[in-house]
Amino acid sequence: MNRKAFIQASLLAFVATLATGAIAQAADAAPKAKVVFQVSDGDTAKWNLAFNNAKNVQQELGADKVDIEIVAYGPGIGMLKADAPVSNRVTEATQSGMKIVACENTMKGQKLTKADMNTAIGYVPAGVVEIMKRQGEGWAYIRP
Amino acid sequence: MNRKAFIQASLLAFVATLATGAIAQAADAAPKAKVVFQVSDGDTAKWNLAFNNAKNVQQELGADKVDIEIVAYGPGIGMLKADAPVSNRVTEATQSGMKIVACENTMKGQKLTKADMNTAIGYVPAGVVEIMKRQGEGWAYIRP
Amino acid sequence: MNRKAFIQASLLAFVATLATGAIAQAADAAPKAKVVFQVSDGDTAKWNLAFNNAKNVQQELGADKVDIEIVAYGPGIGMLKADAPVSNRVTEATQSGMKIVACENTMKGQKLTKADMNTAIGYVPAGVVEIMKRQGEGWAYIRP
Repeated sequence: MNRKAFIQASLLAFVATLATGAIAQAADAAPKAKVVFQVSDGDTAKWNLAFNNAKNVQQELGADKVDIEIVAYGPGIGMLKADAPVSNRVTEATQSGMKIVACENTMKGQKLTKADMNTAIGYVPAGVVEIMKRQGEGWAYIRP
Repeated sequence: MNRKAFIQASLLAFVATLATGAIAQAADAAPKAKVVFQVSDGDTAKWNLAFNNAKNVQQELGADKVDIEIVAYGPGIGMLKADAPVSNRVTEATQSGMKIVACENTMKGQKLTKADMNTAIGYVPAGVVEIMKRQGEGWAYIRP
Repeated sequence: MNRKAFIQASLLAFVATLATGAIAQAADAAPKAKVVFQVSDGDTAKWNLAFNNAKNVQQELGADKVDIEIVAYGPGIGMLKADAPVSNRVTEATQSGMKIVACENTMKGQKLTKADMNTAIGYVPAGVVEIMKRQGEGWAYIRP
């Protein structure tokens, strides 16, 4: 291979690498949708709507093809108490692969400890900051 | 033109093509705003607020400069029934260029068929998934 | 420097500038989170929740590390009237660095003038369009 051919081949290889990278990224990104649900109302009907919404997303896209996180804060924190009227649905949702988290700021404000909460859930320091972070990472945001 | 000059010119042309492409894309993207509105409350005041919001966006940006889609699901589905108190506004909105769609999941749950619905609307299999998809495509999301 | 060397050096400088710009932008972008809050309910509890949310974000991220804008429109406009029950919190929030704006479209509709409003706030022609714009600029969106 002479020098000119080498340079041309290198350029082609460079462009091909870029293109392959872009295609690989697209292929990676496509199958996994991501959505964060906000629950900030103290309203059982809204809690059920949030679970219905999240379940529909799983059924529509396939539970293994979507990351779902439900963030409860403010008056929505009641959804995640151990004695909440929807506590069965909380447990069921985590078993189906959803991540459900409570806002520790809200808990402090309402004098709740982890002992008061559903054992299936996780915790974040600040619910709103968690939702902001997820949006920044490209997750869709749904506020039922 | 000698060989070296040819390679240099090719490189410059390549960079210029990239730059031109980026500028053309920016010029294409700028004029058309896109927004999806979620209606998930069973509340006539909220339905009217959603229509007011969408109309204001059209007036502010120009109806031909913005794509507006209103997605009704859950308790919001009532907005799109043929006999809804806002049925005139639904028809008016679609005539002004907005797309209004009902969630078929919700309809099944509430035993509604297309015969029960406003004839001006469209349908999506799952309202929340539609909103997620639009956000993924870069649409703004408004939840009135 | 001969002509050939000059062209090569220019190309290198161009690529280096691009790379440096990208790095500088990444360094700039990382520390400053941005979030727009929507207040569109005529409900004092929601107004307080919005202020609590925004304050928590400041405490969590540092007031100088996050841009917070609160947009009030529709029934939410009442939050920004001079005689609102939360007028102290509006003033306090702007003093802490948040930007709070009222929708002039809503004001016209409700026959409100700037004389009726909290003196600490700013104005936007259309609240929803402002929120769309912010989302388009990469701001997170929270609807308390």
